[in-house]
Amino acid sequence: MTRFTRRNLIGASLAAAGAASAPAEAAAPPVARPAPSIYRYRVGTFEVTALYDGVWYRPIDEKFVRNADYADVRREMSDAFMPAEKLATPFTMLLVNTGAKLILLDTGTGGQIASTAGSFGENLTAAGIDPKTIDTIVISHFHPDHINGIKTKDNGLIFPNAEIMVPEAEWAFWNDDANLNAAPAGLKTAFHNVRRIFSDIAKDVTHYRPGRLVAPGIETIAAPGHTPGHTVFALQSGNDVLMVLSDTTQHPALFARHPDWQPQFDIDGGLAVATRKALLDRAVADRMLVTGYHFPFPACGHIIRRGTGYEHVPMLWQTSL
Amino acid sequence: MTRFTRRNLIGASLAAAGAASAPAEAAAPPVARPAPSIYRYRVGTFEVTALYDGVWYRPIDEKFVRNADYADVRREMSDAFMPAEKLATPFTMLLVNTGAKLILLDTGTGGQIASTAGSFGENLTAAGIDPKTIDTIVISHFHPDHINGIKTKDNGLIFPNAEIMVPEAEWAFWNDDANLNAAPAGLKTAFHNVRRIFSDIAKDVTHYRPGRLVAPGIETIAAPGHTPGHTVFALQSGNDVLMVLSDTTQHPALFARHPDWQPQFDIDGGLAVATRKALLDRAVADRMLVTGYHFPFPACGHIIRRGTGYEHVPMLWQTSL
Repeated sequence: MTRFTRRNLIGASLAAAGAASAPAEAAAPPVARPAPSIYRYRVGTFEVTALYDGVWYRPIDEKFVRNADYADVRREMSDAFMPAEKLATPFTMLLVNTGAKLILLDTGTGGQIASTAGSFGENLTAAGIDPKTIDTIVISHFHPDHINGIKTKDNGLIFPNAEIMVPEAEWAFWNDDANLNAAPAGLKTAFHNVRRIFSDIAKDVTHYRPGRLVAPGIETIAAPGHTPGHTVFALQSGNDVLMVLSDTTQHPALFARHPDWQPQFDIDGGLAVATRKALLDRAVADRMLVTGYHFPFPACGHIIRRGTGYEHVPMLWQTSL
Repeated sequence: MTRFTRRNLIGASLAAAGAASAPAEAAAPPVARPAPSIYRYRVGTFEVTALYDGVWYRPIDEKFVRNADYADVRREMSDAFMPAEKLATPFTMLLVNTGAKLILLDTGTGGQIASTAGSFGENLTAAGIDPKTIDTIVISHFHPDHINGIKTKDNGLIFPNAEIMVPEAEWAFWNDDANLNAAPAGLKTAFHNVRRIFSDIAKDVTHYRPGRLVAPGIETIAAPGHTPGHTVFALQSGNDVLMVLSDTTQHPALFARHPDWQPQFDIDGGLAVATRKALLDRAVADRMLVTGYHFPFPACGHIIRRGTGYEHVPMLWQTSL
């Protein structure tokens, strides 16, 4: 039987490296830029486009998960091939054309959080979409990676014709000065960021109460814990449903597999756990198509039970519409 | 605690469906075509582009896995959200620009196998690559989904300037009339297809012996079982290695998880199992980046052990090069 050793896998290459030969060039030069990160699929008659904003390798330490042994967290990260002590945090936005409205769910980092994220705009262009044609922006919650893409660094509006809809509980929480004053230092930045994004456009922002539709076929559902007004969405068209989990779980390799883990950024960790389990149980029971904002691109698929937790099963990439 | 029921997830949508309103249209029409299915990454200084050809939902029955209970096969397929009695068979080609050569590893279905596959050509165009600039085609084995893309249905050469390199053991097996005559009826088609593709270009086809380099940094390794001359590739540039597993496993949700399973299309099932385990063990031991021809697009990632088998962990989508 053939034995595959490191030597016979790469040995010949190493040997050849010593054999000098005249340099040649490929007939085509390297492309030297990433491919567009766009994935388009249908939910009933709705056309859904997943647009990647990139990934932030967020530094973490032993305090990152409040109620887990850091060795266990590191083991899961290693199994997911994340770099050590960095949480791979991908960002995928969802653009939904219902036929009646072109609706963007959350807006990405606006290139204001990490040098490795901020490609949403160029992917939107590559997808053939003009930002001026977006009718509605629906925000799930007010963390910076969800709202910063509303504006440029200089506070210009990126989607000048879009109505902006936000959860009313989220608006109330982040705009309350008592909450700002009581917040730990690390969270105060997020409060100030909410003011930067919304203060000069407040009169134009619409507040929605979860449980209602924000457009025909797009239902909003309160999913508190991650933040007080954190909201998820159910898209329905014909017999198809897509559950948009927002930040119900951060990276599923950690928080679907360990739904009890309470990461630092869940404001009410216990409530977030209960919400997470209830939504993932629902996804399992109905074999629902789901997508998560921090799931690996293209971020859609299904949820199955695995051991004491859950697992994200990516959707098979489609090339027909 | 909020309870997420089917009713409150999609209830409001259903209620609203009854409320007639004046039809409106989104500011932008639906795009109505799939996004390009291209993924570009680096292995050292090599630029690797994964190009999707689509997916074939191959009908199967209780004879599909020779040595497994069909109920077990169906359970894994259900957990992977495949349709019942159809094996989701995605196809991803790999284009490697080494700087010295532009090399295509296998060529896809050529649109000659299933209506849902055959998008390689348009993805190649979307990736900015002219088929005339491909210097070399390296074939892993002679199943139709790997060689049909060499030619159009009318036997025109799609890559007119490419040297075509094939494993010598594979050439010998499929071109031997004794093997054709001894083959079961279902396999005879594949023998005839090999003749269609190669007979009029035989004098221009180069035969390689695995263990050698086909280009600087691209090593070929015999991996028999799936077919007698089935070959895998190790790409090495600088300190980076990518193992190209070809058909070492078909869909990993079935055959990485159950490496002992012998699907009908492995010509020597027992040898294929031994090869599969040896290569996957190697991938685990070295935490090697791997790609598989029938892995879900973009088809690259790592392998970890899971239970009595293995699991494919997809690579996190990169947007920087």
